[in-house]
Amino acid sequence: MTLFPVLIHGAWRPSGNTSGVFQAENPSNKQRIPGEFPVSGEADLEEALAAAGDAARRLRDVPPDALADFLDGYANEIGADLDELARIASEETALPIEPRLKTVELPRTMDQLRKAGAAARERSWRRATIDTAIQLRSQLEPLGGAVVVFGPNNFPFAYNAVSGGDFAAAIAAGNPVIAKGHPCHPHTTRRLAEAAWRALQRSALPAATVQLVYDTPLELGLRLVSHPATSAIGFTGSRPSGLALKAAADKAGKPIYLEMSSINPVFVLERALKERSGEISDQLLNSCLLGSGQFCTKPGMIVLLANAAGQDFARDLAGKFAGRASANLLTSRGPQILEYAVKALREAGAELLTGGQIIDRTGYAFANTLLSVSGEQFLRESKHLQTEAFGNACLIVLADGIDQMVEIAGRLEGNLTGSIYSEIAGGDDEAYRRLEPVLRTRVGRLLNDKMPTGVAVAPAMNHGGPFPATGHPGFTAVGFPASLLRFSALRCYDNVRPHRLPTELRDDNPTGKMWRMIDGEWTQRSVGAR
Amino acid sequence: MTLFPVLIHGAWRPSGNTSGVFQAENPSNKQRIPGEFPVSGEADLEEALAAAGDAARRLRDVPPDALADFLDGYANEIGADLDELARIASEETALPIEPRLKTVELPRTMDQLRKAGAAARERSWRRATIDTAIQLRSQLEPLGGAVVVFGPNNFPFAYNAVSGGDFAAAIAAGNPVIAKGHPCHPHTTRRLAEAAWRALQRSALPAATVQLVYDTPLELGLRLVSHPATSAIGFTGSRPSGLALKAAADKAGKPIYLEMSSINPVFVLERALKERSGEISDQLLNSCLLGSGQFCTKPGMIVLLANAAGQDFARDLAGKFAGRASANLLTSRGPQILEYAVKALREAGAELLTGGQIIDRTGYAFANTLLSVSGEQFLRESKHLQTEAFGNACLIVLADGIDQMVEIAGRLEGNLTGSIYSEIAGGDDEAYRRLEPVLRTRVGRLLNDKMPTGVAVAPAMNHGGPFPATGHPGFTAVGFPASLLRFSALRCYDNVRPHRLPTELRDDNPTGKMWRMIDGEWTQRSVGAR
Repeated sequence: MTLFPVLIHGAWRPSGNTSGVFQAENPSNKQRIPGEFPVSGEADLEEALAAAGDAARRLRDVPPDALADFLDGYANEIGADLDELARIASEETALPIEPRLKTVELPRTMDQLRKAGAAARERSWRRATIDTAIQLRSQLEPLGGAVVVFGPNNFPFAYNAVSGGDFAAAIAAGNPVIAKGHPCHPHTTRRLAEAAWRALQRSALPAATVQLVYDTPLELGLRLVSHPATSAIGFTGSRPSGLALKAAADKAGKPIYLEMSSINPVFVLERALKERSGEISDQLLNSCLLGSGQFCTKPGMIVLLANAAGQDFARDLAGKFAGRASANLLTSRGPQILEYAVKALREAGAELLTGGQIIDRTGYAFANTLLSVSGEQFLRESKHLQTEAFGNACLIVLADGIDQMVEIAGRLEGNLTGSIYSEIAGGDDEAYRRLEPVLRTRVGRLLNDKMPTGVAVAPAMNHGGPFPATGHPGFTAVGFPASLLRFSALRCYDNVRPHRLPTELRDDNPTGKMWRMIDGEWTQRSVGAR
Repeated sequence: MTLFPVLIHGAWRPSGNTSGVFQAENPSNKQRIPGEFPVSGEADLEEALAAAGDAARRLRDVPPDALADFLDGYANEIGADLDELARIASEETALPIEPRLKTVELPRTMDQLRKAGAAARERSWRRATIDTAIQLRSQLEPLGGAVVVFGPNNFPFAYNAVSGGDFAAAIAAGNPVIAKGHPCHPHTTRRLAEAAWRALQRSALPAATVQLVYDTPLELGLRLVSHPATSAIGFTGSRPSGLALKAAADKAGKPIYLEMSSINPVFVLERALKERSGEISDQLLNSCLLGSGQFCTKPGMIVLLANAAGQDFARDLAGKFAGRASANLLTSRGPQILEYAVKALREAGAELLTGGQIIDRTGYAFANTLLSVSGEQFLRESKHLQTEAFGNACLIVLADGIDQMVEIAGRLEGNLTGSIYSEIAGGDDEAYRRLEPVLRTRVGRLLNDKMPTGVAVAPAMNHGGPFPATGHPGFTAVGFPASLLRFSALRCYDNVRPHRLPTELRDDNPTGKMWRMIDGEWTQRSVGAR
């Protein structure tokens, strides 16, 4: 059987010193997909890191337009291969080609690459700052070494280590990337990396700007994130893996940007439920079961009052959950993960309203699951009742009043999102004023009257939030130019002679449009121009 | 003897459950200064954290002008007490009243408070971003809990936990501060905190916005930085303490901004030395011995060629070091720290050119010390030869050529600064082009023809750098508005009703001048205005 090569130092070559091989599996039929992929050993990683170090030095002399040209070219390569990419990814993930992979996720992925390129071209993300009187100039610059990106299983394109948001942001900020693909969709990753490689061949960038390994043992992953040649890490995935990598990176002093678990609480205030119970339950149903609930922003917990309307809502929603067919899950582990989470929630006092069991059928599946628990019990077991159930499961918390709702919000861990539904006419405004300040500090994105799934790639997006949803509350993984900030270092030039300064810090504005802070004022002018 | 109270929840009150007491010492005469200070135990910290949490919630409703008014008022309070503050600080630190404490460090401290206030008033630091079509709005906001600031021993005002740069930035960003003063100058800290408290009394800020403990045992310090009610930490001090706090904060997912050790290498290229050897050695002498070398940006290592000019430079400089009187050190530990560092450097192969021993006299002092080592030996023992000697000591590294200089730069740990001296006429340009890319990634601020001491409080300053000089390469501890960024969280509002938005994210520009990114364009206009 074919053993696929890795991409190191600009060449597709056999993995050296392979620590094993693996195959992808089709989660729709539990069949292995032909072709083997190497689990990279130390040799691959050391070579990739050395090549990335060299690429990082050379990238410093590459104009931002060349970065943007590569990202645009890569997007075009993807655009020319939509059908085959969608087909391969669907086979590996059980996600539907339509309406998901081909017309939603692939266009989003191309859009991200192009927007990252536009941010690189525009250059204002660098926050160039010039104090003319004292000849002090600074800006954000590439880190000087490899950015290692770990991709998750749930977005084979838009968060793929070799094509997703972290990849695009790291490259746009001028860094070489070592991508560690997710082992559940290696064929997709390979085809993407081939597209990247073709675009790279035509670009002015160093050959080692994009490198790929398909998998590596955990202990080598820990060494990779703490290696002297690694400058920063982007990770999207589970909390246990993320925390292990974070501990290793922290100890070595490497910035690591993580997107880990989130239960994305949704609070429905009293009058909103009275006003539009059916509409909200439909929205929740769709948001919760979209992609079989395997989204980092899936609403995993809904908080409402334990009155008759709340009880009705729970019963109604349970019926809707039971009445909709379960989609296949991404991997063989998916059903076990849900079974484990449901067990943890039940042991902590939650009651099963519907679902709760693995479905024995051709593909990997779990029954759409809804649980409920009282607010009082939530407060008693708030840690375990925040166990993330990654997939098509949700917990209803029935609070005995707004006081308890606020108390529940106060027990929440850091989340990516939090939603509040309130009456349109304003009848919930007082309750909102009490709940919002508590919820606000626990989430990265606060929504009104809206479910959290659907993460727009827009400048104002924050796909981030307090620990443990991420590793740092000041950064977003989605949206340009802000997501570039993660993969940069602040570099200052003090009394440095003019011809030695980076282009962006010379007197002349390099694009005529780049925003720079000159003597305390944001401006697009050149130094000295009026 | 008087046991001084701590400042908790707006009141000066006795420390509860004190885990010990301590006295300040006058390092000029080794005499204890009357008055005892408590080492705070758990009770103080828990009360301070609870009060800070409450203050954080209330601060969200305080307009930025009130933050600025407080910071201005505090600066004025300091300005009305210059003589006494300088006298007390000089007694505790042996730093001279003139030309240092009264007319340099105190004005700088007032200037920092006022500039932080101006940044708060101006609001552009928040990077408010509005996408009108999808009703998505985000900005940087206060963290929601306490910022704990640990001050160092070497700047009793400008970096004091209750008046320095971290304090000013954290308050300006809207956070309550719990200051942990440095135990070597508690009387200074107390007098500053009293000034802050008077200004606070007249302000619209919550009483617990500024709190102070004088010291706490290390294990409680570790608990403090990892406590659920702590949102972020600013630390300036030694590497061992910094790394211990970092490990605890990292594990708890708390952003910690550290300023630890730095040897601030200075490279003198061949022709520069030929051109102006005497001038450079005078600059180095003054920079190295300023404040008895107890500066985080003291040049601790100078690299030059091992030719006749290099040997002459070393001899000349040793004579100048020996010929200047040693100033007193800050603390009783100062001489031991230097003795230990000199021992470590000598054991790693450095040769003593002058000094090297503790001076037995009325005050704490160490002989001005210069060592030298070959480039070859440096490369063999690069780890130990980068031992920081905090004080009036410096290591000369004599390289056998520019290749070796570049190799030496490649072995450097992360530093706050790095300097390159080159010939004015440009004769060193080729050597510069080889050295700079390597040195650049290892330092936060790169200087040309200039010593690193003197950290201007200016927008383009970067007082930061790669680990282990700091804990994150993307942030500066000095300069406004950039230093505020450390103490904020990115918060997004998705479909949130207009009347519920923070002022800065509403359609109208709140100041008429705040810079915001609206639909991808930086502007001072209101939404909809042309």
